[in-house]
Amino acid sequence: MSERTAPGEAYVVDGPVGVADGWWVVEDGHDPARVSALASSHLTGNGALAYRGTCAGWGADATTGCIVHDTWDTAEGSAWTELCTVPDALWARWTTAAGTPLLLAHDQPQPDDSAFTRDFDVRTVEQHLQLLRELPEGTFTLRERRFASLADRHLIVQQQQVTAPPGTTLTMEAAVEGRVWSLNGEHLHDHAAEEVDGVLVVSAVTGERGLPIAVAQTLTLTDVTGAPLAADATAVDLADPRRPHRRLDVTVGTDGTVVATQCMVVVTGHDLVAPPTRPAPDVPRPHADRHDVRAEALTRARTAAATGHAALRAAHAAAWDALWEDIDVRIDGDVIARTVLRYNLAHAVMATPMHASHLPLGARGLSTQAYQGAAFWDQEVYNLPMWVHTRPDVARALLRYRHHTLDGSRRKAARLGYAGAFPAWVSGETGDELCPDFFFVDVHTGRPTRQHFNDWQMHVAPDLVMALDRYVRTTGDTDLLHAEGAELLFEVARFLVSFVHLRPADGRYHLLRLLGPDEYHENVDDNPYSLEQSRAALDLACRVHDTLAAEDPDRLAALTAELRLDPAERDAWARVRDGLVEIAPDPATGVIEQFVGYHALEDVGPAEVAARLLDPGEYWGWPAGVAVHTQVIKQADVVQLLMDHPGRYPDDVVAANLDHYLPRTQHGSSLSRPAYALVAARLGRTALAEELFLRGALVDLLADAKQVSGGTFIGGIHTAAAGAAWQVAVLGFGGVHVHDDHLAVLPHLPERWDGLAFRVRVRGGVVDVEVRHAGVTLVTPADNPAPIAVDTPDGRHTLAPGTTTLTGPPRTATTVED
Amino acid sequence: MSERTAPGEAYVVDGPVGVADGWWVVEDGHDPARVSALASSHLTGNGALAYRGTCAGWGADATTGCIVHDTWDTAEGSAWTELCTVPDALWARWTTAAGTPLLLAHDQPQPDDSAFTRDFDVRTVEQHLQLLRELPEGTFTLRERRFASLADRHLIVQQQQVTAPPGTTLTMEAAVEGRVWSLNGEHLHDHAAEEVDGVLVVSAVTGERGLPIAVAQTLTLTDVTGAPLAADATAVDLADPRRPHRRLDVTVGTDGTVVATQCMVVVTGHDLVAPPTRPAPDVPRPHADRHDVRAEALTRARTAAATGHAALRAAHAAAWDALWEDIDVRIDGDVIARTVLRYNLAHAVMATPMHASHLPLGARGLSTQAYQGAAFWDQEVYNLPMWVHTRPDVARALLRYRHHTLDGSRRKAARLGYAGAFPAWVSGETGDELCPDFFFVDVHTGRPTRQHFNDWQMHVAPDLVMALDRYVRTTGDTDLLHAEGAELLFEVARFLVSFVHLRPADGRYHLLRLLGPDEYHENVDDNPYSLEQSRAALDLACRVHDTLAAEDPDRLAALTAELRLDPAERDAWARVRDGLVEIAPDPATGVIEQFVGYHALEDVGPAEVAARLLDPGEYWGWPAGVAVHTQVIKQADVVQLLMDHPGRYPDDVVAANLDHYLPRTQHGSSLSRPAYALVAARLGRTALAEELFLRGALVDLLADAKQVSGGTFIGGIHTAAAGAAWQVAVLGFGGVHVHDDHLAVLPHLPERWDGLAFRVRVRGGVVDVEVRHAGVTLVTPADNPAPIAVDTPDGRHTLAPGTTTLTGPPRTATTVED
Repeated sequence: MSERTAPGEAYVVDGPVGVADGWWVVEDGHDPARVSALASSHLTGNGALAYRGTCAGWGADATTGCIVHDTWDTAEGSAWTELCTVPDALWARWTTAAGTPLLLAHDQPQPDDSAFTRDFDVRTVEQHLQLLRELPEGTFTLRERRFASLADRHLIVQQQQVTAPPGTTLTMEAAVEGRVWSLNGEHLHDHAAEEVDGVLVVSAVTGERGLPIAVAQTLTLTDVTGAPLAADATAVDLADPRRPHRRLDVTVGTDGTVVATQCMVVVTGHDLVAPPTRPAPDVPRPHADRHDVRAEALTRARTAAATGHAALRAAHAAAWDALWEDIDVRIDGDVIARTVLRYNLAHAVMATPMHASHLPLGARGLSTQAYQGAAFWDQEVYNLPMWVHTRPDVARALLRYRHHTLDGSRRKAARLGYAGAFPAWVSGETGDELCPDFFFVDVHTGRPTRQHFNDWQMHVAPDLVMALDRYVRTTGDTDLLHAEGAELLFEVARFLVSFVHLRPADGRYHLLRLLGPDEYHENVDDNPYSLEQSRAALDLACRVHDTLAAEDPDRLAALTAELRLDPAERDAWARVRDGLVEIAPDPATGVIEQFVGYHALEDVGPAEVAARLLDPGEYWGWPAGVAVHTQVIKQADVVQLLMDHPGRYPDDVVAANLDHYLPRTQHGSSLSRPAYALVAARLGRTALAEELFLRGALVDLLADAKQVSGGTFIGGIHTAAAGAAWQVAVLGFGGVHVHDDHLAVLPHLPERWDGLAFRVRVRGGVVDVEVRHAGVTLVTPADNPAPIAVDTPDGRHTLAPGTTTLTGPPRTATTVED
Repeated sequence: MSERTAPGEAYVVDGPVGVADGWWVVEDGHDPARVSALASSHLTGNGALAYRGTCAGWGADATTGCIVHDTWDTAEGSAWTELCTVPDALWARWTTAAGTPLLLAHDQPQPDDSAFTRDFDVRTVEQHLQLLRELPEGTFTLRERRFASLADRHLIVQQQQVTAPPGTTLTMEAAVEGRVWSLNGEHLHDHAAEEVDGVLVVSAVTGERGLPIAVAQTLTLTDVTGAPLAADATAVDLADPRRPHRRLDVTVGTDGTVVATQCMVVVTGHDLVAPPTRPAPDVPRPHADRHDVRAEALTRARTAAATGHAALRAAHAAAWDALWEDIDVRIDGDVIARTVLRYNLAHAVMATPMHASHLPLGARGLSTQAYQGAAFWDQEVYNLPMWVHTRPDVARALLRYRHHTLDGSRRKAARLGYAGAFPAWVSGETGDELCPDFFFVDVHTGRPTRQHFNDWQMHVAPDLVMALDRYVRTTGDTDLLHAEGAELLFEVARFLVSFVHLRPADGRYHLLRLLGPDEYHENVDDNPYSLEQSRAALDLACRVHDTLAAEDPDRLAALTAELRLDPAERDAWARVRDGLVEIAPDPATGVIEQFVGYHALEDVGPAEVAARLLDPGEYWGWPAGVAVHTQVIKQADVVQLLMDHPGRYPDDVVAANLDHYLPRTQHGSSLSRPAYALVAARLGRTALAEELFLRGALVDLLADAKQVSGGTFIGGIHTAAAGAAWQVAVLGFGGVHVHDDHLAVLPHLPERWDGLAFRVRVRGGVVDVEVRHAGVTLVTPADNPAPIAVDTPDGRHTLAPGTTTLTGPPRTATTVED
């Protein structure tokens, strides 16, 4: 068998999936049923574009695709607005003189003449293919690696190294394949292809808005030393502008090796023009013209080719190294957990549009077109915390995206009869609601069903605000808060006041007709998560209003004028905040009822409910799914409240709710297990937490989540689960919480782990934390701007810049374990 | 063929159904598919019990049954509480010497040797069977007639007259057949049978509560002159207590005729003991013991047998004649409409428990066990008006039933978290909610679905109150209003105040999460019908409170103490009344939106929606039926508002809404066409009104309504439609409305009719109205207590007692017709 690229011993995770060296995910053999899953799992991306982890030349049927951010388009006849997949400039094929293609077919079982392994380098986000073929002509190997550059967001680089018996002739083809995988129709039209000095350039425009997109391909052949290799003949065929291709024959030299490097450059008309400040769906967005886009792609491709693979990769790896320095969370003593966590962090990065403050972080990132490349509450609640605590500049950009799209939220609120801003459940380019009224399909009747994600799941509004609060509390960036933040905040407060109803019977404000975090139960009242988030958001609005009044009256005056804020509104925010009904824990059991009437529902568990399914594809939820009239919930809901509001309830209440809801939770959302894991970790129930953490973090590596729900494709990387893995590790096991005036680091280390090391940033300073069973070490660099107060298991420490502080052991050992 | 019993020419209505003489419904031939429909249509009943219109001896499979009021029971393993069907003491069989039964089999096509006709005498509510058989032994005929006595609520009398070749021997069997039709399980247990002096008595007890029920049978054989006829031998077999029977052989005399009279007497343990004043499901209700019940049945049976058929029938017919004098509405010039209307009035009577003030008027009356023998809003909105205006004592008893069951309404309100009284959607013995959460079945999955008839259809609460208002306005019976009425009224007002929500955004009170009259759209807000009914109920509560304060402070003080009424509550009623949101007609179109968001639903018609059905048995409504996301409504809703609030909107608004909603209405409820008909008649659109009136009134005669919906049997007489027929005729075409200080009679007569005559009672007085195209005649009897002010087409008249007033013609001729 061809050698593995990943170093060291491989440890089996499950089935064909393994890990190695703390940084590598490996998989042996070729299984057609896992092609699509690996394409997501072995994705390479940089937040601007992402190329799926297939093998070069497999084509659209294998779900090969490069998804590019900021290219929303609705194909003719489709109800779905989605990001485009662009022509595949990494398409390649190697054929022996006998006409045998080296690559295995994606949809056929692995032939006996082959060995096939794919290793995924988490550190640099590269898939390495190792293929060996024993053919009648001799032994052939193909090694292929590919990265989407973190140093150049337009660039993907692929290198293939083929070994063959010296003197053999191989035919190599490289195309810009325009027939690409696309979930909901064709987006690109009017393709034009050209060759300029060896660069193939395809340009096309999107169907809905005429956005030009150009894709360029360079191809360089060398021997194993890097010396240029002349092809015997190169034929370029531009006849089909949707598939220009090159074909060349290479005679293998005495070293038996040919190295081909393909650069793929993607430029869109949006890349060259600043986005509008208040985007609206009915206002055409400016973009560069096709000529300029094509020219930019060509220039970038030439530069990339001239730079060469080694230098391109070095820049890419350096960018990742710098990022890992901030975001890495190192688990010691458990190579599987260590690797799986990093794998999640890498995917969390790939999903994040770090280069922009006008783009959302999609629920599937750029791994597939599912979920429309759009932000859900996931962005703020599951992905943002990692950035807030490690790279606050990225968090800031994501928060600014919500301000950038505030007009869309305002339009949604107005359309539904509310005041202020009601952020979209599915938020894309303009912030207008992308979630359609009907999308799941009743498998029994084939009829679309009405889900109320887009009008009843109102917690998204306070969720955004509470993310802003976390950011400001952690960074001290009151500039953002008082500028864009306050506008968002006040508009959300207005929305909340217009959403509530006062019940004369009890004199309290209620939240009616909700969809809480648990999506199986729609049309519920007084969901405690939604209530607490709303109360906190209104409180923040009042506090910011008061602070501005005291400290920056000019800004408040400007905002008041701009928003036509009535002076009485601030009092209405306070009145509703104070009057919102409180759902107290049951005095006897400590359990908080998930909504009014939840406890009266049929008390069965997920397994019993699953046994009632008549069709495995049935949606479990509203309006008529099997879970609707039972206590079975899709995901953490009360536990989500406990996760997001640490300290809000005493530990015994937290534990009571964890124990009450866990057996009733199906974990039908990838957000669910991490929430339970985090809360369990905070309680010191590390064995339970560790199990939930790992199962949650494996969702994409093992690809055991549903690919289709109610007829809608929902496959791809669960971006929120990736961000959640960081939270479980650092906020859960690491016990990190940022208070107004100090940092808390109160870790609980699973017994099986030797240690946990991570970095957090607080108010411009850095703290490197290393948790071991013997004690916790806190290191601050010398250039920290100020001392940092930290609560640790053995009490309060104040960390001066450039110091190392040893504290007592984490509390795990002394906690009664579950 | 045997002669028809009905006199005169028969007019075909549709298919085999005809009418004759203005009082008879006739049907030729035997169709097994119509056996169940005729069993309902040819029902004979008296409000205490009802015997289905089958033929004696057909048995349970033919839906033979006698349903007895006030016998609620839940069979073991059933979710349904329903009235009992009791042993069938009218079971009989005649067999020739060759062993051929005379009666046709209910489930076999009619044999060629027979003629078969069933006539239904609407005036005395008797089914007449005429059967002729040409057998090898000769020609045989069987005539059978049956009435449930209106003069003795325990008694049903059946007479069979057989002709046969003289000298022939016939075998006659008569049983008390205990294997009876029952929708949801066996109710009677522990049967005991005995014969006492020729009376067969069966007693049994209900399974749930041990209520004793006794059924007695007498049998008398005579010749055609009435002279007793001795049987050759009578064998009584009591071996099976569930089916004691007699068998006798009769040799036919020279007159060729044998007459057999069976009396069936039913007595229950509730008949002999006064009902409790505040019934509750957890308090055992007193009943007589089995011995006394058996003895009472025996005594009554002996008396009946001794009285004889002729005298029993004379008393029965006299009771009906007296009733018809008050309730008859005579249409001249259209024998079909004339007969069909009377047929409906007869069924409206049979459904009404005129003998009691603790029993509901069931939605299927006593015609089947469907709808649990229970009252819906139908009782007050569809049935009560006829009684208010013709026999206010009956209306009073029905209203007192609502007070009798007030504690049940209080328990429902408390269980759902409301104050005051929330009347049951399905109200039986105690007023506790009988409507289960789940009852329809999804035909695609076989799963029960959750309908919110029992918690969201809150308009039933103000509906009751508005019926009380109609009663008091018409009768002037402030005694009832200030005694039982005020208690009901105040409790409903309390409920309404606890139900509403104040929206801070607009400062108005809203009704949220409703099911309005149109049952296909659940979970809607601000349904104008519910709003207007609530507003009017709150207004009445305030007015009654103020009147009591001024005129009867002792009664108010007593009520205040009993209900622990806070003095501020009356102001809350007024505040909510004044603050309820108003849904104004659209200024451009006049259309009133049925609920917030209705106009935004898909605008298709019932036929288009019907074409989408995958299964004809699908329920169209919530949560996932074909109508839910469309503008197709089941029944009148805004038009129900217009029906119940004449004068609330100008005629052009009324017309606009009639025209807007009619093409969107499926008429899936039998309440629907009458509402449209009534409103159309009031507008003078008599052709449309006449068509809708007749189609609505034929629902049971033609049996074209669904027998099963979403898996639940809903067959039987549509009692509300029967009551509605009176309303369309008198309140619609007759133009009757009782105002605070005068009566209005502003008729519109369809062109095809010659006249319309009816009686109404107002404040203790009687007005006999005869509408003809030439003019309207108003006659008052001499014993009217006071003059009556009447608005007529030619102005105000004051009708002194004992006068005849001729007024101008109705407005039909001058109205532009649709």
